[in-house]
This record gives sequence, C-alpha cells and structure tokens, in this order.
Amino acid sequence: MTALRSASSIDTIACVGAGTIGGGWAAYFLARGYRVKVWDPAEDAAEKLGRLIDAAWPALAELDMVEGADKSAFTVHRDLAEAVADAGFVQESAPENLQLKRELFAELDELTAPDVVIGSSTSGYPMTEMAVNLVHPERFVVGHPFNPPYLIPLVEVVGGELTDPAAVRWAAEFYELIGKSVILMEREVPGFIANRLQEALWREALHMIDQGEATVEQIDRSITDGPGLRWPMHGPMLTFHLAGGEGGMAHMLDHFGPSLKSPWTRLLAPELTGQLRDAVVAGCDLAAGERSFADLVAERDAGIVAIRKLAGGQR
Amino acid sequence: MTALRSASSIDTIACVGAGTIGGGWAAYFLARGYRVKVWDPAEDAAEKLGRLIDAAWPALAELDMVEGADKSAFTVHRDLAEAVADAGFVQESAPENLQLKRELFAELDELTAPDVVIGSSTSGYPMTEMAVNLVHPERFVVGHPFNPPYLIPLVEVVGGELTDPAAVRWAAEFYELIGKSVILMEREVPGFIANRLQEALWREALHMIDQGEATVEQIDRSITDGPGLRWPMHGPMLTFHLAGGEGGMAHMLDHFGPSLKSPWTRLLAPELTGQLRDAVVAGCDLAAGERSFADLVAERDAGIVAIRKLAGGQR
Repeated sequence: MTALRSASSIDTIACVGAGTIGGGWAAYFLARGYRVKVWDPAEDAAEKLGRLIDAAWPALAELDMVEGADKSAFTVHRDLAEAVADAGFVQESAPENLQLKRELFAELDELTAPDVVIGSSTSGYPMTEMAVNLVHPERFVVGHPFNPPYLIPLVEVVGGELTDPAAVRWAAEFYELIGKSVILMEREVPGFIANRLQEALWREALHMIDQGEATVEQIDRSITDGPGLRWPMHGPMLTFHLAGGEGGMAHMLDHFGPSLKSPWTRLLAPELTGQLRDAVVAGCDLAAGERSFADLVAERDAGIVAIRKLAGGQR
Repeated sequence: MTALRSASSIDTIACVGAGTIGGGWAAYFLARGYRVKVWDPAEDAAEKLGRLIDAAWPALAELDMVEGADKSAFTVHRDLAEAVADAGFVQESAPENLQLKRELFAELDELTAPDVVIGSSTSGYPMTEMAVNLVHPERFVVGHPFNPPYLIPLVEVVGGELTDPAAVRWAAEFYELIGKSVILMEREVPGFIANRLQEALWREALHMIDQGEATVEQIDRSITDGPGLRWPMHGPMLTFHLAGGEGGMAHMLDHFGPSLKSPWTRLLAPELTGQLRDAVVAGCDLAAGERSFADLVAERDAGIVAIRKLAGGQR
C-alpha cells in the first residue's frame, strides 16, 4: 500500500455521521486540539452537534483536553467531498446498516487520498463484510468506541481480510496518541470483544424480562448495586481471581468449575478443559503481576468506596 | 408459622462459614453494631477472619459503620450449637455444595428456635433444592450477597416452595434495616438475577479465550476501560436507553433490534415481540422517571469522570 501519512502530522479529522457516536467523537477530537469537519445529511445536524459538544466540554476539560483546544473549531457539511477534503483521518459513524456502510465506504474510498486511514465506529460488522468493491480497501480499519466516545477510553481496533496490517497498526497508534485505551484484535470476531460480553449480558436480561423472571428495575439495580461496582477496577477475570480467595483463579476454577454446568444463564459454557483452565489461570497471574492478593483487595475496596461516595451519591 | 422475632430486637448474629463471603458478612455485621458468633471447622479460621476484618474495617468506617461498632465483638466456634445459641439471625455461607448445604440446614433447623430466620449466601441454588427434610423449612430464605459483602450493597432475597412469604419479607426488611440494597424476587430462578447476568458475560469470555478470540487481559480491559465505567451509574437497561439518544430505549430497540439476530455472542436472543419491546421501554421510562435525557447524560458523565479520576488513578 501507499506509505501512510504520519499520525502526528495530522491537524484535521473528518467525522462522517454526527449522531450520538459521531458527535461524541467530534467532541473528543476537538478536545484533543484537532480541527473537525463533520458530514451529516440531517437538517438539524449542526444544532444537535453544538448541543452535544457543549454538554461534553466540561467533562472533557476535567480529563483529556489538551491546551489550546477550541470547541468551535468544527464545520458541518452536507457535501461529503467537502467534509473529507484535507482531512488526515476519517472516523465513520453512520447508522448501523451494512448496505449503507458499503455505499458510504465506496464514496469515501473515491473521495480520499489512498494514504488516509478510515476508521469505522461499527458496533459489530467485520470490516471484511463492509469493505467490498473498494479500490483501496487496505486502509479501512474498525475503530470501535463506546458511548460516550468523549469519556470512555476503550477503542477496539481490527482490520478485515483486505486491510493492510500496517494500517491496523497505524490506527492503533493514532488512537493511543490521542489518549485512548486500544485493544488490537488479531482476528475478526462479530461484535469484537466488549460488545460480545455486553451483548451476552443484555440478551440474558431480555430473556429474564420476557419470561417474567426480573423487571427492568431489578436488572439495572442488580448491576449498579452489585457487580457493576467492581468492574471499573477489575474486569470479570480478575474479579473471579479475587473471588477465589488467596488461591486465586486456580482455586476458583477447581472449586466452582462445576457451577459452569449449572443453569445459571441460558448461555452454555465451554468444556473446562485443562488447557482452558491453565490459560485462564496464567492470564490472571500475568494480570495480577506483582500485586498480592491483599494489594488487589485493597485496590478493589478503595475503588468501591470512592465510587459509592461519588458526588451526587447515586449509590 | 411461629411469629418471627422483631428484626430490630436482634443483637447477635451467627455466621456459619468464615471464608471470603462468610467472613465478609461477619465484618459487615460487626460494623453495623452486632455481636457476631462465627462457626467454621477450619483450624486457621479465627486467624484468617481476624485478617479479613482488619482489612475491611477502614473501608467500612468510610461508608456503613454505625457509632459504637466494635471490631472485636466476635467469637469463633467449632461447635455449631454453641455458635447459633442466642443468635437472632443466622447467615449461612458454607461452600457451594448442595449435599453439604442440605446437611447443614438440617442441623441448623434442629439447633435454632423456629422463630429465627436463616439466610443463605448460596450463589445460585434455589432454596427449594436446599431445604429438604426440615422440620421448619418456612424460615429458610436465600440472602445472596456479592463479594465483598462488606462493601457491595446488593442482596438478592428469595424463598423456596416451603418458605413462608412472611419470612421472605422479614429477611428483606432485615437486610434493608442494616443498609443493604435488596432485590426481592417473586420467583426462584437458578443464579437469581445478578449472577445470571454476570455468568452470561463470564461464559462468553471463557468461550472467547477457549477459541483464541481474546486474551484474559483483553477481556478484562474491554470491561474496565469500556462498559464497566458506565455500569456503576446506570445498569444495562438505562445504558441502552441513553444509547438510543433522545429517542431512548424505544428508538434503540426499533433501530438496533435487528442486531439481536447478529452473532454477537453465543447466546441467542429472545424474539423481540411487541410485548417485550413495550415492557422494556416502559421499564426504562419508569426508571428514568423525571430525569430528562440531558439529566441522565450529565449523571452518567459526572460518574465516569469521577471514577476515572479515582485516587490511585487506575484508569
């Protein structure tokens, strides 16, 4: 592929689509000091975007904003060619519709120089399914954010079959450069990682509501007042590493392994082979690193205390 | 059934089992001003419990401790009869083994007065399966906490077929009295609510690790740096209510409904019938109450900012 332009030389970014996600990206890019050109066909796009950026700005000022960031450094366009002209990077956040994405990608492919990387905010389509019939598919990469993109650090980065690995690396480095927490996936999986986990939980919740097993209020409170208080500190794996007590994940799996067979969710578990057990245990040991059991407990508890004491006192 | 003793008259609680969960309960009860009698057959139970209470005490002092709480107001017993004598409430947190729970329940049934409610910390067994061959099964109730029980507010309360609804209500009121966030379930479901949701996520994670789709580190970071930052403020339902933009959950379901058919997790979704759609939308509208879209966004954002700024700066 064409040599990609240097990520640090970029001063203008095009946001294609200015809904909740695209508008959130625009706010983030502005806070990082970029000039942002936004394309959206909606009549009231500029007005809505202005409101979104106004609402996001104070939070951005507390966390990720760089000096000299200008919240008015954006323009809204109804002509796509105009929006992407002179943009060093394009973040596409159009509605989640495969045919629409394909058509939009074809246009973007034609309207942008081949050394410009195009990141897609798709919630779950593999790039291989979106990047069809393109002249330069090698610079199309998934860069999947979480709502609100101006506050949640995670961006999942993965290419399609026709994406050049150099473009995938470029996107990962670019998102890291602007302060994001990047997960670079080696392999295309529908829904990527976080949305697969979140979707499993969401589908179990829908089944429970459907069957009258729980109400919407109970589902939400079971998370906000329960496991949701632990997850900002430790993900599901380290959480269960701690639940195993001083024996950690090894004790957890050897002891609670049988509950994997319990009908505790509608999702069947994989067979807990020795290989899977060992991979999970090794991953947790690696993640814990030099932190002892007591260190991890102290870290978790300090986090829960702080969250429960949040101003506003929602908990 | 026998009239239950008044929850507010209780001054002594028996903790049956002093592992991570039972010991955590003991710490919490002490912080709430109770005298605690602990039964555990392990040689080093007293020593481990002392360490656990010492570690938990500073966090308890920040949040839920009552005046006059005494962290040394506990005794450890190897004789069950001695431990439960004069206890006004029993919290059972033995290892998760059905046969063991049944035998322990039979002993507790014999050793405690019939007006004493017995709460079980079981992670997922329905009370109907545990309370068999008892003389007074009507006062056995599930009171399922989350690790660590001294900091996580959630307790799921549900009876079995033979439990008196008055005992279920008594347990719910007791846990509320001591500062817990109680979900009273109308119906026995294996895994209750939060563990079903958490287990669906955990099983999807295990499948992904098993198939080489994600590493342990990626699974954890996808939650801590992603959706996990939202869940302490808004559960999965209100989170998606917000993802729907100003159109809320109705827009979300009508717009993203088709993604329920996507292979985004190994768990198949229920059919999104009009009835299910309406129930979810109505539940979210009820939960949002008088909070506008802008109010909810501000609440979520303030929470994420505060969590990301936590002392220690894990994020």
